[in-house]
Amino acid sequence: MAEVATARRSRITPEREAELYAAVLDILREVGYDALTMDAVATRTRSSKATLYRQWGGKPQLVVVALRHQKRLHLAEVDTGSLRGDFHTILNREDDCQMEQNSALFRGLAMAVHTDPELLSAFRELLVDPELAELDLIIRRAVERGEVRADNPALGFVPHMLIGAFVARGLIDERPPTQAFLASYVDSVILPALGV
Amino acid sequence: MAEVATARRSRITPEREAELYAAVLDILREVGYDALTMDAVATRTRSSKATLYRQWGGKPQLVVVALRHQKRLHLAEVDTGSLRGDFHTILNREDDCQMEQNSALFRGLAMAVHTDPELLSAFRELLVDPELAELDLIIRRAVERGEVRADNPALGFVPHMLIGAFVARGLIDERPPTQAFLASYVDSVILPALGV
Repeated sequence: MAEVATARRSRITPEREAELYAAVLDILREVGYDALTMDAVATRTRSSKATLYRQWGGKPQLVVVALRHQKRLHLAEVDTGSLRGDFHTILNREDDCQMEQNSALFRGLAMAVHTDPELLSAFRELLVDPELAELDLIIRRAVERGEVRADNPALGFVPHMLIGAFVARGLIDERPPTQAFLASYVDSVILPALGV
Repeated sequence: MAEVATARRSRITPEREAELYAAVLDILREVGYDALTMDAVATRTRSSKATLYRQWGGKPQLVVVALRHQKRLHLAEVDTGSLRGDFHTILNREDDCQMEQNSALFRGLAMAVHTDPELLSAFRELLVDPELAELDLIIRRAVERGEVRADNPALGFVPHMLIGAFVARGLIDERPPTQAFLASYVDSVILPALGV
């Protein structure tokens, strides 16, 4: 997926691409998904709308790729040698301030997804599915190392545990998740459930 | 909480109260929270708006109490003698069809909560806090029975695990949670994390 996307955008430098994604996320934070227009992105980034559409296909794809791009560390690159090390490295991808900003962004998008099938499909294809596949790799390596039994019934629930911790923190405690909260959740819930 | 609410609504029979709550949830499903008006509730239930305001205080309170009322079995009544039994009884409060309907209702409300402080506070006071307190009772009984160690670090995360399972199911698997899914999550994640 990352290769395909890069090839398609070959005429844009990585710096320019990063600048553009940052502008998209700024606009998203300012006005929300529904009010974000390709016109506004074109103006703010001094690009032509034709270029934006040619390179990204449309608003849903551009927004989702921008969201994915800000996670500078891809899960696939995480391989510390222990499952606990891998999980804690993943949590450190974002500091508490970024996590707070991203909670708000994702909450806004979660609403839009329910009324916009094109956004839902971009969200799944360009963000959720690649992250789940990479998370699966991390788990499979832990099984191969003998850290987790291959028949542990919690294996299929790792994404639910992780995403659940993020979402439930906001619902129950009315604050965004912090690194300390998530680290404690990993050590107290996820690793014990996996028998680590 | 339940006692106070009942006293305040003493002139309404329980049957009438149940009928009224059912109508509120019907309208909520049809038009969503933002478009639900006290006028519509008054018309549909052949009540006066003055009665509705006197008995419930306003739209946020009425909607949240209606949501709580449909959970016919209160958590506080659950006491099977084992934590596993208690959790499975809680899951059986709603069949799969009700769970699907309720996922949609709660998703709609979760959006409204972020822009309506009065709804947020009704949601917490009349629904979330009482359920958390009752869940806490169930957990404390398990600790007193010796099923769970009092210093188990997962104890503080039980609500996050439970709510996370509900929410993440929709996000990751794009379907509402079912009893089978949640029962498996309880047995594979929550009980092992608690050392049961």
